[in-house]
Amino acid sequence: MEEFVVTPWEVHGAIDYFELVERFGTQLIDDELSKRLKKYIGDHQMLRRNIFYSHRDLNWILDKYEKGEKFVLYTGRGPSSNTHLGHLMPWFFTKDLQEAFDVKLYFQMTDDEKFLFNNELKLDDTRNLSYENALDIIALGFAPKRTKIFLDTEYANVLYKIAVEVAKRVTFSTAKAVFGFTNSTNIGSIFFTSMQSAPAFLESVLEKKNVPCLIPCAIDQDAHFRVCRDVAPILGYYKPAVVHCKLFPSLAGSDKMSASLPQTSIFTTDAPKTARKKVMNAFTGGAVSVKEQKEKGGNPDICSIYQYEYYLFEKDDDKMKELREKCKRGELMCGEHKQILADKIEKFLTAHQEKREKARDKIEDYMLRD
Amino acid sequence: MEEFVVTPWEVHGAIDYFELVERFGTQLIDDELSKRLKKYIGDHQMLRRNIFYSHRDLNWILDKYEKGEKFVLYTGRGPSSNTHLGHLMPWFFTKDLQEAFDVKLYFQMTDDEKFLFNNELKLDDTRNLSYENALDIIALGFAPKRTKIFLDTEYANVLYKIAVEVAKRVTFSTAKAVFGFTNSTNIGSIFFTSMQSAPAFLESVLEKKNVPCLIPCAIDQDAHFRVCRDVAPILGYYKPAVVHCKLFPSLAGSDKMSASLPQTSIFTTDAPKTARKKVMNAFTGGAVSVKEQKEKGGNPDICSIYQYEYYLFEKDDDKMKELREKCKRGELMCGEHKQILADKIEKFLTAHQEKREKARDKIEDYMLRD
Repeated sequence: MEEFVVTPWEVHGAIDYFELVERFGTQLIDDELSKRLKKYIGDHQMLRRNIFYSHRDLNWILDKYEKGEKFVLYTGRGPSSNTHLGHLMPWFFTKDLQEAFDVKLYFQMTDDEKFLFNNELKLDDTRNLSYENALDIIALGFAPKRTKIFLDTEYANVLYKIAVEVAKRVTFSTAKAVFGFTNSTNIGSIFFTSMQSAPAFLESVLEKKNVPCLIPCAIDQDAHFRVCRDVAPILGYYKPAVVHCKLFPSLAGSDKMSASLPQTSIFTTDAPKTARKKVMNAFTGGAVSVKEQKEKGGNPDICSIYQYEYYLFEKDDDKMKELREKCKRGELMCGEHKQILADKIEKFLTAHQEKREKARDKIEDYMLRD
Repeated sequence: MEEFVVTPWEVHGAIDYFELVERFGTQLIDDELSKRLKKYIGDHQMLRRNIFYSHRDLNWILDKYEKGEKFVLYTGRGPSSNTHLGHLMPWFFTKDLQEAFDVKLYFQMTDDEKFLFNNELKLDDTRNLSYENALDIIALGFAPKRTKIFLDTEYANVLYKIAVEVAKRVTFSTAKAVFGFTNSTNIGSIFFTSMQSAPAFLESVLEKKNVPCLIPCAIDQDAHFRVCRDVAPILGYYKPAVVHCKLFPSLAGSDKMSASLPQTSIFTTDAPKTARKKVMNAFTGGAVSVKEQKEKGGNPDICSIYQYEYYLFEKDDDKMKELREKCKRGELMCGEHKQILADKIEKFLTAHQEKREKARDKIEDYMLRD
């Protein structure tokens, strides 16, 4: 079995998500917890399909909520590129959580991080990308009154103060062990995790009382919150709860969708025709010839088209099952399925891009500055 | 010979200031440069007495100035305690530089640093101390229009952006080698040097053009500016020039005056009577008995009272020489000299504290925020 790597800055290999839960020391979302969440968020396909599948202290935060203590949501985006579909996935779930629990959401744009960890990007680039990415967040329909978006560099008057409180309690040894830093790592990258921890305590700082925080994020971000949770009690705050999703697959059929490979990622800013082309070029579980596929069927488990349906585009389980069966029986050819998905994506992008343009006028309603 | 240590956070042993110039790779202020400075700042006792004695690129910045390119001054204060007389020493010189060259001064209060490097201090403490220390700066009479004071945590919207530009170009290896960090150092302390570098580029950033910067500081701060100067050309800025002073002696007759030993430091907030008591208890170069001292004389070179006169209180060289000779001939007893110095310090503190109280109403004229 190939060795796989999952850190906030590197994901490769065939990820075993159960193994990851062991490695990181998180908990699987079991049937009981899933049922408990269902009371609030309904029969959500991302829970049903174990896309959001792991957590830390989710039961605890529900206990708090049920006793009348509201939490805040906190999630984020590393603005290294335009938004792609993989980024939207946890945002959809976050929006559903926000509506279900009627809570505030802090949305962090880590323009500092993407600058510090990427030699190709200038701070102006990550700043501009933050604002471009914010348009996608707004286009999804997050409520402006309860949703506050901020850039690390623009909200530093507030965040840096919290970050140094965190940083004082994290040694280089810890950062090295958790993130795999070396002596060649730059000192901004070493410090950065403090900036990602800070928003977990933001509401508590602003409200001057301890407020629980729930962080929906992809599992590759967990390392930051392990550190954050260790520091929280020292600072007198609750440990943030976390709910983790799997990583959205690439059109190349392996690893996560990565903005550094634009041909295998669909960006929200792609022209619908461009997106269609990318889908048509995607890796599938098809056989070498149409003839062979009609005889032996396809393999949906390794097919990126199938994964796209499963993770995002086909919410109906019956239809999902039908797609799977038809593929396996050789009744649904890859070209045909690609057309089906491409239609859905074109339709989604056309509608999203319209909302995204309208978002330009609303952006100031969402931005948090000091 | 005892090994001595000089870092921004640790000073001990008998400092050999010439050796330090070798260690740090700075330049001595030679007669020619001293003469050149004299044209602007006059016959300044801190140059005459080699209290400001070392530099980096001071000739270069004077060349620039003489060609019509004005520089900015940048100095700072680590707010770990109330201000003591040792802190005032370079500030007096900085003020004289500001007036001589008619230039802007940025005054950084590193409230983050003193919090990160000191387990006893909370961020609220270093913030409050910053404002207390700012009163002393204002009381010295810096011109409000040309002097801007800021706290790192309160000006982070501007500083953090510059700091990450610096931090991206400094590896942990470098920070470790320059500052002696270990794996147990906290990640905020590791990052901090970037925040101390940032103001060297502040005017360039705010004015959107390259502006030379001169940093007057005690020699123990040089490490930060070595790093800063290495990074400057990568960022497209001039390397800041630096002019270094020696460390103000303690009343215990060794090391530098340290706020952690309040009995051997005179604070600007000390009641004049308290200051007098501290002077009366100071370490001197006197003999074991009055009789012996009258016969053999005292040793001014190890005497803290003599050092105080030399560094700060007796500006007249002839009088200084007279004090020295009288001491060595056994004509000036320690008790008598202590009374003379205590009178001067009492007088200074009384006047300073009056100005310091008046400064409370002016503080907002000086503070830089964003």
